[in-house]
Amino acid sequence: MFQTFDVTARPEQGPPRLAALREEMAGEGLDGFLIPRADAHQGEYVAPHDERLAWLTGFTGSAGFCVALTDVAGVFVDGRYRTQVKAQVADVYTPVPWPDVSLTAWLKEKLPQGGRVGFDPWLHAAGQIRSATKELKGSGIELVRCANLVDRIWPDQPAPPMEPVKAHPLEFAGESAEGKIGRLSAELKAAGNRAAVITLPDSIMWLLNIRGSDIARNPVAHGFAILHDDGRVDLFMASKKLEGLGDHLGPRVTRHEPARFLEALEALAGPVQADLATVPQIVADVLGDRLADGGDPCALPKARKNPAEIAGTAEAHLRDAAAMVELLCWLDAQPPGSLTETQVVSRLEACRRKDNALQDISFETIAGTGPNGAIMHYRVTEETDSRLENGHLLVLDSGGQYLDGTTDITRTIAIGAVGDEEKASFTRVLRGMIAMSMLRWPVGLAGRDIECVARVPLWRAGQDFNHGVGHGVGAYLSVHEGPQRLSRVSHVPFEPGMILSNEPGYYREGAFGIRIENLLVVQEAPPLPGGDPERAMLCWRTLTFVPIDRRLIVTDMLTREERDWLNTYHHDVAEKVGPRLGTDARLWLDAATAPI
Amino acid sequence: MFQTFDVTARPEQGPPRLAALREEMAGEGLDGFLIPRADAHQGEYVAPHDERLAWLTGFTGSAGFCVALTDVAGVFVDGRYRTQVKAQVADVYTPVPWPDVSLTAWLKEKLPQGGRVGFDPWLHAAGQIRSATKELKGSGIELVRCANLVDRIWPDQPAPPMEPVKAHPLEFAGESAEGKIGRLSAELKAAGNRAAVITLPDSIMWLLNIRGSDIARNPVAHGFAILHDDGRVDLFMASKKLEGLGDHLGPRVTRHEPARFLEALEALAGPVQADLATVPQIVADVLGDRLADGGDPCALPKARKNPAEIAGTAEAHLRDAAAMVELLCWLDAQPPGSLTETQVVSRLEACRRKDNALQDISFETIAGTGPNGAIMHYRVTEETDSRLENGHLLVLDSGGQYLDGTTDITRTIAIGAVGDEEKASFTRVLRGMIAMSMLRWPVGLAGRDIECVARVPLWRAGQDFNHGVGHGVGAYLSVHEGPQRLSRVSHVPFEPGMILSNEPGYYREGAFGIRIENLLVVQEAPPLPGGDPERAMLCWRTLTFVPIDRRLIVTDMLTREERDWLNTYHHDVAEKVGPRLGTDARLWLDAATAPI
Repeated sequence: MFQTFDVTARPEQGPPRLAALREEMAGEGLDGFLIPRADAHQGEYVAPHDERLAWLTGFTGSAGFCVALTDVAGVFVDGRYRTQVKAQVADVYTPVPWPDVSLTAWLKEKLPQGGRVGFDPWLHAAGQIRSATKELKGSGIELVRCANLVDRIWPDQPAPPMEPVKAHPLEFAGESAEGKIGRLSAELKAAGNRAAVITLPDSIMWLLNIRGSDIARNPVAHGFAILHDDGRVDLFMASKKLEGLGDHLGPRVTRHEPARFLEALEALAGPVQADLATVPQIVADVLGDRLADGGDPCALPKARKNPAEIAGTAEAHLRDAAAMVELLCWLDAQPPGSLTETQVVSRLEACRRKDNALQDISFETIAGTGPNGAIMHYRVTEETDSRLENGHLLVLDSGGQYLDGTTDITRTIAIGAVGDEEKASFTRVLRGMIAMSMLRWPVGLAGRDIECVARVPLWRAGQDFNHGVGHGVGAYLSVHEGPQRLSRVSHVPFEPGMILSNEPGYYREGAFGIRIENLLVVQEAPPLPGGDPERAMLCWRTLTFVPIDRRLIVTDMLTREERDWLNTYHHDVAEKVGPRLGTDARLWLDAATAPI
Repeated sequence: MFQTFDVTARPEQGPPRLAALREEMAGEGLDGFLIPRADAHQGEYVAPHDERLAWLTGFTGSAGFCVALTDVAGVFVDGRYRTQVKAQVADVYTPVPWPDVSLTAWLKEKLPQGGRVGFDPWLHAAGQIRSATKELKGSGIELVRCANLVDRIWPDQPAPPMEPVKAHPLEFAGESAEGKIGRLSAELKAAGNRAAVITLPDSIMWLLNIRGSDIARNPVAHGFAILHDDGRVDLFMASKKLEGLGDHLGPRVTRHEPARFLEALEALAGPVQADLATVPQIVADVLGDRLADGGDPCALPKARKNPAEIAGTAEAHLRDAAAMVELLCWLDAQPPGSLTETQVVSRLEACRRKDNALQDISFETIAGTGPNGAIMHYRVTEETDSRLENGHLLVLDSGGQYLDGTTDITRTIAIGAVGDEEKASFTRVLRGMIAMSMLRWPVGLAGRDIECVARVPLWRAGQDFNHGVGHGVGAYLSVHEGPQRLSRVSHVPFEPGMILSNEPGYYREGAFGIRIENLLVVQEAPPLPGGDPERAMLCWRTLTFVPIDRRLIVTDMLTREERDWLNTYHHDVAEKVGPRLGTDARLWLDAATAPI
């Protein structure tokens, strides 16, 4: 079982640890110290070695940071975690609503002129430090580079991860590492840069066609890389991890221990391209004015999946769909009131594990029933585990990591007899999800230009949801992958091969939640008779094939076109997934995909 | 008759005038001179005195500029005017596709190091000169302030306009000038600015509750104003124009001749707020570092119409609708092939003039039949005047200026028997127009967040149109009014009282055009049962009530909801406009608004 339901927060451990940290601060002559959730690679998941924020404060959310001063310690969390943080931290910690209150505004309020705040330059992106420094100008407050003071007071801090790296077969990668390196180094040269620094693990995995297991949920290994404009790559990764690779990395790649990374940076001729939003401040310090903010050179090429990656992802989705259908069939057979959320999560993981292809789940399954469904990032624990009662909606958001692709799917399931209000809202969410699935749009547009299409049916009823419509997804990599997003704030134009989620929802606090999510891949839209011949357009191809709960649909609220879409979709689900099922599940699927 | 159909371009006059300009350039030691279309007030229409671009080059479009160098003279025009410019200018002028080619890129290509390009600092916005100067850095090319060289060689240049200014009654303005001045000067003070410079004529008209007729189509008078943080206003406007005003301007306003404007600026204590995007460079020169880029303080308050302005605009729309319906009734009675575009324009203006309320048309009527309908900014002349043939679509885009409001309406009308392709495209445009009309959206969103709603039905058929969905509209002021826009590039949040056009279209070059336009006003959306109680939302109220051509609608392509919207709309049209019509038109209207 990958997922656990442990209650990991221990609020009572917070006060003595904060006291110890303050002693270290005093020893260094500091008035404050920053403790981010992030590690040096700015990912969503971190290794136990890097769980400094959780260890110190008790707060286990996937984003946030603590600022410890001598008399107050703020824990900055965003809207998703405002309730959770109160339950997880002791009262020596003060929750701060972020980004409403910025780090620098808070420091200016709490610290006198001349205050000195320490930070570990490996754990903060250069862009963050640059803006914070700019905002603090004139305040007399200074950010000071220093050693990590939490590591000093953490006696049983786990060692950094040291898991073996595996080759990612060309069959799934679709392009040799040599080809990728050659292509990207030529682009680097054309842009006039001598080298690029890559610190995002999924970029390094993609570039070198390797996968790791240093952290949970994402098949990546920690390390750093330098891509040179002459087609060489220096890889800084513990040699122990690379032992099983043989000569997979090829002659273009030179291996080094991570400890050599900074001296290699020092030796580089500029300009050196890097992504200021993610590269650690220490890299910017070493590079100085050789640093050119050109982004991570792998970001866009990695986002544009090639035909092998798309084919692999499509196959992974069918395999994953079979597991989901087995789960849904089983779930429907249980009387309302007989199951709890953790039982659903465990059973779903068991269904996914059945055929041995599952490498990991792609994130912690969200299974929220009734009022828990309205908590967008709900993670069930033994304490919160709730019973699926008659009349509940169950929001089930989950995914798998397979060698050929990464999945992410949400279905909302009726438990027993559901109320009309729930059904009407579900139908509106579904209409938005269908409108996005059916969309075509001109080349050059980005998430912000089209995302409202999935909201209009809710808006017209006076409803909305407080998250983006979708995120990018990797190919056997991170389930949240940039730079493209189906979001009001994304200006990255869509390109063929980009995979995104389409997941409108609706949340009524204390009552119920709804989310319906399919993954889609961008493709060139075929010309239509009567369409503008010169206008290049894009459209989606759906990757996810799992039934949408027909019991929750108010058929009369759908247009003919929407009903046609749903019936065609369900027909495809039956055709593609049916042959992969046992008899019971196949019978269940036939009924679940019957036309409405 | 306000509108004329004269062919105003005389290409043959261009070469001698350019030669004379080059002599002046040589006399000043200049290698170039900039001739913008704009006057000192950066509006869409200019007085004959300011028609320098048209006089010099022959090009009569509403946007563009000429750069005369010693051996080449570029006429920079945007996508709307690429065809027109070729027909209007002699071959001593080179059309330049703008903004694809920027002024500065072109100068760098054409001029050697050390080139000096003159410009009249009254006619260019400070922001333009600032960016151009920045872009020219390092090129050795210099922009040089100088007298207007075109004025020197234009022997019969018309005098600046000197039309009388009239008081705009409180009944229509809805708020006294004293009230507006008090409110805005308090905001100025709160922002820490001592004064604001206002150079946009419609802002001055709005602030002081006056209207003028210095230029065609917009009821404004040219002048400048300074708003002080103590609630005083200095108005710089020829005293001759103000003679009929009596004491309407009140004790807060001090009148000055325009010639005193610059010395008044010199005497100001800073910071002085101004809108860099529109304030002339000479204002920035005089203010120096006292200038604060805070925008035009009237822009947003003017855009948020008060109840009296909304009521007046609604009434103006019903009056205007009666004229439109009389026109449509007459048009339907003429056999295909019997009318030309100019006859339609003349007849429409006559219908609008009938009840004496019409002050002016609000822009040159666009009447494009058949292929002419595909030219988005078509202005019919005696040369282009075309016959309305059987099977044509006629795009008729027009509006009126009334004391109580400004109208702008487009209808597309079937001439005889129209093809299926035209009807299908018309229905898609209509579906987009209805989708926007029915929309509700959360407070805080801007044009870019919702404009695609009007495009989706076209997109899904592989079609689109190359203009924004809509623009702001004034209240007896400019028919194109900022800052709000229903456009992919607009980030100004919508607020109650803002009036916008909703005008999706479709254009097939050489074949036909379609546009359907209603004006809408933003209002707070009433709460809905089942809607999110805490979520503040906005919606539209429709101002335009004129039938949409039912003969062009493929009923089967509409959803039930869209058909309901159309039938309700037509019911309202009949109810609101019917009582204002003669018998013939009323009978016609009953048929034109029957349910589908």
